[in-house]
Amino acid sequence: MTGLACGIDVGGTKIAGGVVDHEGRVLEKLTVQSPAADVGAIEDAITDVVQRLRASHDIQTVGVGAAGYVDRTRSTVLFAPNLAWRDVDLKAELEPRLDLPVVVENDANAAAWGEFTFGAGAHVDDFLLLTVGTGVGGGLVFDGVLHRGAFGVAAEIGHLRVVPDGQLCGCGAHGCLEQYASGSALVRNARGEAAAGAPPARLLLARAGGEIGKIDGPMVTAAAREGDKFAVDLLAELGRWLGEGIASLAAVLDPAMVAVGGGVSDAGDLLIVPAREAFLRTLPARGNRPELEIARATLGNEAGLIGAADLSRQD
Amino acid sequence: MTGLACGIDVGGTKIAGGVVDHEGRVLEKLTVQSPAADVGAIEDAITDVVQRLRASHDIQTVGVGAAGYVDRTRSTVLFAPNLAWRDVDLKAELEPRLDLPVVVENDANAAAWGEFTFGAGAHVDDFLLLTVGTGVGGGLVFDGVLHRGAFGVAAEIGHLRVVPDGQLCGCGAHGCLEQYASGSALVRNARGEAAAGAPPARLLLARAGGEIGKIDGPMVTAAAREGDKFAVDLLAELGRWLGEGIASLAAVLDPAMVAVGGGVSDAGDLLIVPAREAFLRTLPARGNRPELEIARATLGNEAGLIGAADLSRQD
Amino acid sequence: MTGLACGIDVGGTKIAGGVVDHEGRVLEKLTVQSPAADVGAIEDAITDVVQRLRASHDIQTVGVGAAGYVDRTRSTVLFAPNLAWRDVDLKAELEPRLDLPVVVENDANAAAWGEFTFGAGAHVDDFLLLTVGTGVGGGLVFDGVLHRGAFGVAAEIGHLRVVPDGQLCGCGAHGCLEQYASGSALVRNARGEAAAGAPPARLLLARAGGEIGKIDGPMVTAAAREGDKFAVDLLAELGRWLGEGIASLAAVLDPAMVAVGGGVSDAGDLLIVPAREAFLRTLPARGNRPELEIARATLGNEAGLIGAADLSRQD
Amino acid sequence: MTGLACGIDVGGTKIAGGVVDHEGRVLEKLTVQSPAADVGAIEDAITDVVQRLRASHDIQTVGVGAAGYVDRTRSTVLFAPNLAWRDVDLKAELEPRLDLPVVVENDANAAAWGEFTFGAGAHVDDFLLLTVGTGVGGGLVFDGVLHRGAFGVAAEIGHLRVVPDGQLCGCGAHGCLEQYASGSALVRNARGEAAAGAPPARLLLARAGGEIGKIDGPMVTAAAREGDKFAVDLLAELGRWLGEGIASLAAVLDPAMVAVGGGVSDAGDLLIVPAREAFLRTLPARGNRPELEIARATLGNEAGLIGAADLSRQD
Repeated sequence: MTGLACGIDVGGTKIAGGVVDHEGRVLEKLTVQSPAADVGAIEDAITDVVQRLRASHDIQTVGVGAAGYVDRTRSTVLFAPNLAWRDVDLKAELEPRLDLPVVVENDANAAAWGEFTFGAGAHVDDFLLLTVGTGVGGGLVFDGVLHRGAFGVAAEIGHLRVVPDGQLCGCGAHGCLEQYASGSALVRNARGEAAAGAPPARLLLARAGGEIGKIDGPMVTAAAREGDKFAVDLLAELGRWLGEGIASLAAVLDPAMVAVGGGVSDAGDLLIVPAREAFLRTLPARGNRPELEIARATLGNEAGLIGAADLSRQD
Repeated sequence: MTGLACGIDVGGTKIAGGVVDHEGRVLEKLTVQSPAADVGAIEDAITDVVQRLRASHDIQTVGVGAAGYVDRTRSTVLFAPNLAWRDVDLKAELEPRLDLPVVVENDANAAAWGEFTFGAGAHVDDFLLLTVGTGVGGGLVFDGVLHRGAFGVAAEIGHLRVVPDGQLCGCGAHGCLEQYASGSALVRNARGEAAAGAPPARLLLARAGGEIGKIDGPMVTAAAREGDKFAVDLLAELGRWLGEGIASLAAVLDPAMVAVGGGVSDAGDLLIVPAREAFLRTLPARGNRPELEIARATLGNEAGLIGAADLSRQD
Repeated sequence: MTGLACGIDVGGTKIAGGVVDHEGRVLEKLTVQSPAADVGAIEDAITDVVQRLRASHDIQTVGVGAAGYVDRTRSTVLFAPNLAWRDVDLKAELEPRLDLPVVVENDANAAAWGEFTFGAGAHVDDFLLLTVGTGVGGGLVFDGVLHRGAFGVAAEIGHLRVVPDGQLCGCGAHGCLEQYASGSALVRNARGEAAAGAPPARLLLARAGGEIGKIDGPMVTAAAREGDKFAVDLLAELGRWLGEGIASLAAVLDPAMVAVGGGVSDAGDLLIVPAREAFLRTLPARGNRPELEIARATLGNEAGLIGAADLSRQD
Repeated sequence: MTGLACGIDVGGTKIAGGVVDHEGRVLEKLTVQSPAADVGAIEDAITDVVQRLRASHDIQTVGVGAAGYVDRTRSTVLFAPNLAWRDVDLKAELEPRLDLPVVVENDANAAAWGEFTFGAGAHVDDFLLLTVGTGVGGGLVFDGVLHRGAFGVAAEIGHLRVVPDGQLCGCGAHGCLEQYASGSALVRNARGEAAAGAPPARLLLARAGGEIGKIDGPMVTAAAREGDKFAVDLLAELGRWLGEGIASLAAVLDPAMVAVGGGVSDAGDLLIVPAREAFLRTLPARGNRPELEIARATLGNEAGLIGAADLSRQD
């Protein structure tokens, strides 16, 4: 089907909707505040966004990407850490209101599908998206099919264990990749050094007006771009962990490409180059096997919306 | 197609062939020595095995499982560490000789398919086989499809990195799961303790006639079955690493079941129970997600042959 | 000098004073509340305790053990995390009031000296005390001399790094022994398992009346003594980390004996036996070097008081 | 005593003797081949070297530094990995032949004493020498006294465990510092990268005439000095491990200074600067405690000879 689809990205603070054509172009986009604590209000807001976009476009299907666990039938949100949804059959709620077919998908999976179909992975069949933001997440596409897992909870790539007995993670386990390679890890490392009075952290601290608590991820990236060695090293450390994680994933999954998205990927080569180096240094059987491509994702924060729209069209 | 298929398992020392029916039963089996160093001789031996089995059964397809990298078209063996094959188009060589359709598959993938179709994983759609022998290998089935990877080299599960800066692996990387959870690791640990004169190792050493070099895996398993605490602990340590590795794989892949096969799995619950405990202890987000099943594989060393036969029938 | 000495142990909640003879016997003991937040009041309380003990005993010297960094001249407390002292010259304050010679010492050092002189280490010259309580601390005696370090801050044994990129420690570093082998680690592990609903933790949780937050160290020890496998395993895990740490310390320091004290050592062999096993399993050059002795400390919580008293007598 | 002393350094390939005055100056030096496999011949060679040096200098004592375990009485070599000595009472053998007082000492201890007395550590009381050559060794001086340990085998600093379940070490344990921070580790890493065809290793490989097996430590240092980024990174990696190890040692031992000697220390700041950075980054309680000094050792390969001579004078 080549009609227009509406993609909805439901986050903890904002709901974004977009009209997406069959080539992944966003023809129009509308963003509203997310009433995260009120199930009914979220549904009202989604309905409203779709109806307003529909006024000027012939939308035929709706895809909703949600930050949470979605069941295998792609209709029910089982659990969403930052939203009020608990076992909400979103498809059943929205379809009668909209009189349109609705598909629900985990947001990282939707983003992976978007990048696979229209973005960084458009030229391969086996693809892995790593999103590096507050946490580390991702999505997997194998032989052109989105991999959702037996229980719909696959691709929690940030919870690959990379250090036995390592840093305690919010998930209750120790040593998860997310504890070493996320934006939160970046900020924790930067602030930790600044708090310890490490001389290399001085420039970054000055940039934060001397307030350790004001150091954040974009500040580190900005400093690194201007050549601050300390900031460059912080990003390289993150990249190293990513690359080492990718080497493990390559051994198990053998994708043709890994794209790195999420807010921290704005650092570009400051993150990607060290990731590539670490990948090559730690790849098992290196030299006796083809080497996958590592690149930055290309759709930015619209990947989820575009992917959700396209998935609704596939159904 | 429900006709009979011939499965061939080509190892470094033996070639086993079996006539397999559509329910995975091995009607007849023939095992010959493997002329591993001579490409032509291996092909002759395979041909001979098929022809002899064919004399009494109506074989319609042939599946060959080989320990090596197989290309995505399932015809060419790219590289086989223990055999003379380097870029050998086995399908093209065998089909004219046999006048039968031939499919070539990596042996661990074939075994995974066998267990998935007729063995431990017959009741699930998303399945992971872990084979614990000299090394650690495995195969992946996602939504009923064997996962081969972009370059045909997926499922090298033994090369998931579990210890940063860990034990050097034969693959050139450090800290691979195989270095901690394989039969080789089991024997290395047992001999190491015996060599250091550790009192708990005394019973095992006596069992080996006092010769450290004679301690092997089956001996450890036998001792553990008879209650030797040292042997029990050695197997539990292996199980622990397996379980921790499975927890990481569950986060990324979300299979419904993991079956443990290979020679070391003869230890049964002495290996599986500690694996399950470690899996539960280290599973990310435990309590907020369904928990997969861990069980012993059921087809023993015929899994590869049965799987290869069935894959030839699918084509 | 074989006269009587007064030992004072200043903690965050209590001040204990004891009259100690030249054979390390505590002839009389007095314990009062510690006014931890008020420097002058602590000094008043110490003075009062000494004067009251002096009424009935001929005290000739006073040794004060304090939980904090003490300078090399053994008079000034540089920093005490749980007390108001910051650069307080305690010797100068107390001597005029008491008209007695005063020596100030770090409390863990004092305890090590006590155990070395009258307790578990009385038969050796090179001794290491490991105290396993809320944290992990200790003291070192080399060739009969208490080792205080260049800056007076030696023997922070709990901050030996045992896991690179490991658990974040209160000291700001990652992977410190204390994060794996202390009573706090024991309780964290116990509660974590209980919170995750782990079946083996059920008995322990029942013991805590179903309230996870009520699980504490003595409860784990009590459960282990009664055979609760889960509690036994928790203590064994702590013991394993201790033993592995001791193996590293043996390589560097080569003591004749390591005694394990502190509250968690009440678990006795449930802690010591696994520590010994792990020590032997991980000792470098095992078999080519003598093996030190690992035993439980014998003076209990009076070790610090006895040691401080004796140190004042040495001066 | 301020007379002249003779220092002897007995290695696996050479025996070096020197006449050393009371200010640590080497007045004359003689080096001969070491007949390592023949106990009697080594003793003959030592005797010969002393007698020849004595011809022109008034030698009053002899100190022998030997690569092996030496008993606490400083007379008997218990075990020497590269020499024929097994329980040889060297003092008893040499004194009658030379008619001079002889002291025997472990060579790394002797070097530590040399650096402490006349070299990098001459201004401090608490000193640690780290020697980074084929392996990692060292010596400890606490409050001006050489620390030999209860069994004479202290200061095996290379066998501090830095990675649990890490690289197997020649000592039988896993994860020893020596496996990450020695010249052998440097060469292994360099060759490993070259063997894997890593592009950054190309310049170094060219320097070795394309033969991977010819890459050695001095070559890496030379390349790094000329700015080869790959070689610089290899040395920095070694320095990082050293610095992290020093942070652990600082927590336990609190020395005022750590000097880095041994062949790899020829790399100077290329090794020392990264070590210092890693030390500061991982020091426990950083900011709340004084920070030790890390510098390069100053006596080069004469440290052992000078230290042995001086120790003989002390006796």
